[in-house]
Amino acid sequence: MLDYNRDGAAIYRESFAIIRAEADLARFPADLESVAVRVVHACGMPDAADALLFSAEAGHAGRAALAAGAAILCDSRMVAEGVIRARLPAENPVLCTLDDPQVPALAAQLGNTRTAAALELWRAYLAGAVVVIGNAPTALFRLLELLDAGAPRPALILGFPVGFVGAAESKAALAEDSRGVPYLTLRGRRGGSAMAAAAVNALAREER
Amino acid sequence: MLDYNRDGAAIYRESFAIIRAEADLARFPADLESVAVRVVHACGMPDAADALLFSAEAGHAGRAALAAGAAILCDSRMVAEGVIRARLPAENPVLCTLDDPQVPALAAQLGNTRTAAALELWRAYLAGAVVVIGNAPTALFRLLELLDAGAPRPALILGFPVGFVGAAESKAALAEDSRGVPYLTLRGRRGGSAMAAAAVNALAREER
Repeated sequence: MLDYNRDGAAIYRESFAIIRAEADLARFPADLESVAVRVVHACGMPDAADALLFSAEAGHAGRAALAAGAAILCDSRMVAEGVIRARLPAENPVLCTLDDPQVPALAAQLGNTRTAAALELWRAYLAGAVVVIGNAPTALFRLLELLDAGAPRPALILGFPVGFVGAAESKAALAEDSRGVPYLTLRGRRGGSAMAAAAVNALAREER
Repeated sequence: MLDYNRDGAAIYRESFAIIRAEADLARFPADLESVAVRVVHACGMPDAADALLFSAEAGHAGRAALAAGAAILCDSRMVAEGVIRARLPAENPVLCTLDDPQVPALAAQLGNTRTAAALELWRAYLAGAVVVIGNAPTALFRLLELLDAGAPRPALILGFPVGFVGAAESKAALAEDSRGVPYLTLRGRRGGSAMAAAAVNALAREER
């Protein structure tokens, strides 16, 4: 038998203690601190906390929306899979429209990626929703365009696209002008579905 | 309209060009270079390439196993969701046993996490499989224990557990002694389902 910690609850406690010791959490509002901890936990990098940008009301807005039954709109199936259903306060619907059969035609029509085109199918759910972008920069850019064009306003935008083309730029655009919508995002190229889902999971239930 | 690249194929090309310019890929065997590129692409960090540890035959072993129809055994549903089915060469089964109803009782019996206990249900599929660990250090430790106890040998181990307790240690144990099984792993705390799935996707089909 190898020597390692086999107790899931103890592993969580120890992990969160290490994160609180290593990450600089002083600048977070009380209701976003646990979100920062969960995001760091998902990526293994304490300095990710330093790259989080947010509006002060993001924590409250996200929790209130989830408690009221808000839909959770995800840009990728990995994000949707990472949302822990048992933590959700109101059996909130978790939607990813990327595989809808209408999406390829919409993408051709819009001249955009499939991931961006999939947002056309969010319109009926956008009002008051929690939007979670954990993969595609084009999805975040497209969301800002939809808001500029008068689409219904979500309650919160969690912006975690990852990568080398458009990720940093789309998140900077969100942080510079979130179109009046509360937001949390990660500056730079880093991001991804695990961090995005972790932010939802942190807002869905307060840590004990 | 905002100014951004909306062409998915062009975004991929530009991303991979940036990665090849910024990441040090010289030390990779030809058949692992595209895997390193995809792992970097999944996390947005060129220096992740420097943290990859591998056995020289890992690329060949993984591709040959997938071509032969190997099962892909995943420790988490997010990893399984990230494997792009259309890239797989032989309609390979993608399995995650974490939600099997037997798992909670197995975890209690073994005195280990649910994720580690879920590996008990891999035994029938392990021989020649591609094992992908993208979340839990305990799953990787448990895999090494199963191999030490004489379990059937997989064709390849992709070790990408993430986090602060056991992640670095379990990956170091794999790299130090992979029990004769070809492997690819990422040194340190970083890792996760996106990088793990990216490694599978790179092995499943050669980039054009």
